[in-house]
Amino acid sequence: MKLVASLALVAAATLALPAQAQFAKPEDAIKYRQSALTIMANHFGRVGAMASGRAPFDANAAAANAAIAETMSKLPWAAFVEGSGTGNTRAKPEIWSDNAKFKAAAEKMQGEMSKLAAAAKTGNLDNIKAAFGPVGGACKACHDDFRKD
Amino acid sequence: MKLVASLALVAAATLALPAQAQFAKPEDAIKYRQSALTIMANHFGRVGAMASGRAPFDANAAAANAAIAETMSKLPWAAFVEGSGTGNTRAKPEIWSDNAKFKAAAEKMQGEMSKLAAAAKTGNLDNIKAAFGPVGGACKACHDDFRKD
Repeated sequence: MKLVASLALVAAATLALPAQAQFAKPEDAIKYRQSALTIMANHFGRVGAMASGRAPFDANAAAANAAIAETMSKLPWAAFVEGSGTGNTRAKPEIWSDNAKFKAAAEKMQGEMSKLAAAAKTGNLDNIKAAFGPVGGACKACHDDFRKD
Repeated sequence: MKLVASLALVAAATLALPAQAQFAKPEDAIKYRQSALTIMANHFGRVGAMASGRAPFDANAAAANAAIAETMSKLPWAAFVEGSGTGNTRAKPEIWSDNAKFKAAAEKMQGEMSKLAAAAKTGNLDNIKAAFGPVGGACKACHDDFRKD
C-alpha cells in the first residue's frame, strides 16, 4: 500500500493541472493515453524478451526499459476523461460507470510495474523474471474488464 | 557537447538492442515514434503553458512535465528504421538520404530539451522561460526539413 500511495503522489505532481484542462478535445485524450500505453508496452516487451530468454540479458538495458515502462504506467489514467469513451477507442463504458474498480485496476498495474522496475535495478535476472508475470497479469485483468475486444 | 555526449550514452543504454530487432514491422516503428513524440509534445506543452502565463506556475509540475518530455525526447530516433518512410507517416525521405543532418537535428532537440529539464529543476520560472524557446526552435527546424506538411 505504501508503494501505491507514493505512486499516487508522483502522479499528483505530474498531473497537477485538472485533467480536463490537459486535453483540448476528447480525441486528444484518447491519442495521449494510447500513446503512453504504446510506449509502455514496447519497453515492457523488451524486458519480457529478456525475462523469457528470447533476447540476451543486458542488465543496463533491462533497467532502462523497465524505468521507461514505469514512467509510462503513471500517465494514461488522467486521460480517461469523461466524454472520451467514443471514437477511436476500445474503452468500455465501465471505465466511467465503475470507476473505482477501474482506478483500482490501474493502481494495481502501476504497483506491479514499479516492483518490476525495482527488480530490474538489482541487475538480477531471476528478480526480473519473478516480477514480470504479475505485471502481465495486471495488464490482462484490466483489459478483460475495461477494454473492448 | 558534453551534454549531447552524455545523452548519447543514455540512449545507448536504453536502446541496447539493434533498432531493427525492436519493431516487428515498419508500422510498429511508426506508431512507436509517433507515440513518443505525442507524449513529449503534450508534456512540453504543459511547461509552455506555464512559461507563457497561460497556466499558473507550479514548480513541481513544471519539473515533472519537463522530465517526462526529456525522457521522451530520447526515444523516437531508433524507430526511424530503414523502410519505415511510407504508410501512416509524414517522414520525408531525407531522414534516410541525409541521415547525418537528421541525427544532428535530433541531437540538437534532445540537448535543448535536457537544458529545459535542468532549468525546470531549479524551480525558477525565468530559467524555464529562457530554456523553452530554443526547444521549440529545435522542434521546428527538424519539422521544416524532415516532416511533410
